[in-house]
Amino acid sequence: MIDITSRVASIVAASGVREGMVNVAGKGSTLGVTTIEYEPGAVSDLRRALEQIAPANDDYAHNAHWGDHNGFAHLRSALMGTTQTYPVRGASLYLGTWQQIILCDFDDRPRDREVTVTVFGE
Amino acid sequence: MIDITSRVASIVAASGVREGMVNVAGKGSTLGVTTIEYEPGAVSDLRRALEQIAPANDDYAHNAHWGDHNGFAHLRSALMGTTQTYPVRGASLYLGTWQQIILCDFDDRPRDREVTVTVFGE
Amino acid sequence: MIDITSRVASIVAASGVREGMVNVAGKGSTLGVTTIEYEPGAVSDLRRALEQIAPANDDYAHNAHWGDHNGFAHLRSALMGTTQTYPVRGASLYLGTWQQIILCDFDDRPRDREVTVTVFGE
Repeated sequence: MIDITSRVASIVAASGVREGMVNVAGKGSTLGVTTIEYEPGAVSDLRRALEQIAPANDDYAHNAHWGDHNGFAHLRSALMGTTQTYPVRGASLYLGTWQQIILCDFDDRPRDREVTVTVFGE
Repeated sequence: MIDITSRVASIVAASGVREGMVNVAGKGSTLGVTTIEYEPGAVSDLRRALEQIAPANDDYAHNAHWGDHNGFAHLRSALMGTTQTYPVRGASLYLGTWQQIILCDFDDRPRDREVTVTVFGE
Repeated sequence: MIDITSRVASIVAASGVREGMVNVAGKGSTLGVTTIEYEPGAVSDLRRALEQIAPANDDYAHNAHWGDHNGFAHLRSALMGTTQTYPVRGASLYLGTWQQIILCDFDDRPRDREVTVTVFGE
């Protein structure tokens, strides 16, 4: 789970949009995008909750059908969602002080990830 | 849970938008929209997870108040969300290869469903 | 959990947009935005489900690190999401009859909340 807030904010700033919104979309079916207070405690609480909702070592039909081991990752992605849209105000990404955008890579091996950021407005 | 990716992609293609985003919104409070790798295993894993989070046969206050039997469906809809927004790039819906948009009808009886697709961009 | 549908609908009506979409974004990391049939039963079912997913009195690393008591609120916010985007059709917010937009304040004390509404379209 990595904090991508500053990268999204840079794209918003470079876009010249003052009032509008920004869509942040992860590409793939084993990742998620959401916001959290990005500090080790809250991030660890989120990891633990996801492990309870979709345990890594449970029996998954996806794994049984395909010989994969990432059924839990598909499940977490479908439940969290891969895309979120935030406001742009005063030419800036408009979030709370303790609210950061995170990219969650749920897969069972390290992967390069692509996040598409689209800014709209005037 | 049905795969609506090709229908959304067709609307994007017909819109003439090359760079932008597309909003996919289910109408109602007993359905959900998300993405998943649309193969029987992952879909079955998602059904099972939702049955654990909001069991069909649990006691729901919604059912007790209204004589309904779809309290679980309202709960699943509120937790998953009914709307998602995806990028459009190169005049196409921009998703991962194994990432499909699904409409989840959670209700306790067959229903016709309406999904509103809105394409934005240039 | 309060119903903010009529406030969002008023902003849509005042915007002059006839066809498009509206983004509804809560500011902060201890709140959520979603839709539900806004009646006491379904709302109570949602509260109970969130209490099972992220119990208020569980042990949270966030609380242990910071002396806070709202680790559950951060978790609920990250899992539900703080922002949703709905269609605008015929100059109106386009939702189901029994589908209301709710702002969920998960924090452990009363707070003033800010929701940013952005309308797009023609």
